Amino acid sequence: MMAHAREVTAAVLLIGDELLSGRTQDANLQAIARFLNPLGVNVVEARVVSDDQAAIVEALNALRARADYVFTTGGIGPTHDDITAEAVAAAFGVACHEHPDALAALEAHYRDRPETLTPARRRMARAPVGAVLVDNPTSGAPGFQIDNVFILAGVPAIMRAMLAGVAQRLEGGAVTLSCTIQAAGLREGDVGDALSALQDAHSDVAVGSYPYYRATADFGVQLVARGRDAAALEAVAAALEALVRSCGIEPERVAESVS
Amino acid sequence: MMAHAREVTAAVLLIGDELLSGRTQDANLQAIARFLNPLGVNVVEARVVSDDQAAIVEALNALRARADYVFTTGGIGPTHDDITAEAVAAAFGVACHEHPDALAALEAHYRDRPETLTPARRRMARAPVGAVLVDNPTSGAPGFQIDNVFILAGVPAIMRAMLAGVAQRLEGGAVTLSCTIQAAGLREGDVGDALSALQDAHSDVAVGSYPYYRATADFGVQLVARGRDAAALEAVAAALEALVRSCGIEPERVAESVS
Repeated sequence: MMAHAREVTAAVLLIGDELLSGRTQDANLQAIARFLNPLGVNVVEARVVSDDQAAIVEALNALRARADYVFTTGGIGPTHDDITAEAVAAAFGVACHEHPDALAALEAHYRDRPETLTPARRRMARAPVGAVLVDNPTSGAPGFQIDNVFILAGVPAIMRAMLAGVAQRLEGGAVTLSCTIQAAGLREGDVGDALSALQDAHSDVAVGSYPYYRATADFGVQLVARGRDAAALEAVAAALEALVRSCGIEPERVAESVS
Repeated sequence: MMAHAREVTAAVLLIGDELLSGRTQDANLQAIARFLNPLGVNVVEARVVSDDQAAIVEALNALRARADYVFTTGGIGPTHDDITAEAVAAAFGVACHEHPDALAALEAHYRDRPETLTPARRRMARAPVGAVLVDNPTSGAPGFQIDNVFILAGVPAIMRAMLAGVAQRLEGGAVTLSCTIQAAGLREGDVGDALSALQDAHSDVAVGSYPYYRATADFGVQLVARGRDAAALEAVAAALEALVRSCGIEPERVAESVS
């Protein structure tokens, strides 16, 4: 409803050789986007880089200059290939030190088995100078925030728990509302010209067209309207439904809040 | 085995608002990486951008200067939000025209229903001047190749079919071999220091450590060795197995060819 609030943006930097080799299917970009949408923060770019300091530094410096917030995932564990803390420090031109609050969090987590706080695990207390902690309710080792950059874990369950804890640090803008109209059996080429005209007539609502193919007899198109003004959105949604009906197909409005 | 062949690299550019809004979970990065690995082509960076010409142009020009090959996915359909052909043309500083071979392919595909080759569908014949076709055995509308850039569909099944058709156009390098050793019940902090020493001793093999948490009693670590020399890889794999055994855990070598 805050149609005139400015757009607040985020970028996502996914760090890890395993994502680029195809070994691991990323799940964090979608989780971050879906978490931020209802807060009025829109993801505008994402990058995937390897466990390489120069690659991380370059990508992070590009993204943090461009977006209001940057969320990184991966590379904050206890092994030699976890280099995100050093790389973020290098990107900001600050030193990387053992953060006293992070060490305290690790000591509390390993209180009952202090011998397991090995040098490797103690590396997880390293953070760029000037960073503040992001709480890790799942496994002890914290994430970090420095300036507009949040450094989160790569394991999806841990990453999501960290995200939940930083919501109150984010200043959102206008929430982007969304309406999806599914047209079973429609082929998007049949409505492409009409969609183009509809988009031209409604510059404040973004119209998207996403074909799906689930099986030979189960295909169609999801037509999506996205915008910040509920009334303008509803007008476009109604026009999309009318367009689908004009093709002899009964549209189905898919339930969703924001995305 | 071609341990001294140069590394051949690829970058992936995923195009689409739906990926950044969290509406759609990307599956193409992993599919492309897994397809390229056995060809001796390593994905070194990926970016996700919106359906915005300036964003596509900037990302594509950065990536095509950096990697031997670039694969884009998305934005080549028949609707107004499909702008990849124009954006790629702009990135190369060439015009975008109706490619005669692409139009012929569309006309052949819609031979039995020529009235369905609407203006919207005919847009799918647009390509940068100088591009050659990438065959689309699934749905008619072709992809394109211009210089070292392959422009593929976003729908995963169509994308994969297009990829299969361009394998013979790629000149690969040394294949990166991989060996994964699973250690059920291991915590990576327990082996972090030893892994670091092992990595330091084997600069020609990359050692990765990936914890997994499937359930309260089903967690562990996958230790991964990757390299181009089979003998060096096997030496590191054996050392990793010995390391796991030293923790009182029987390692399991996970079957895989390349990744």
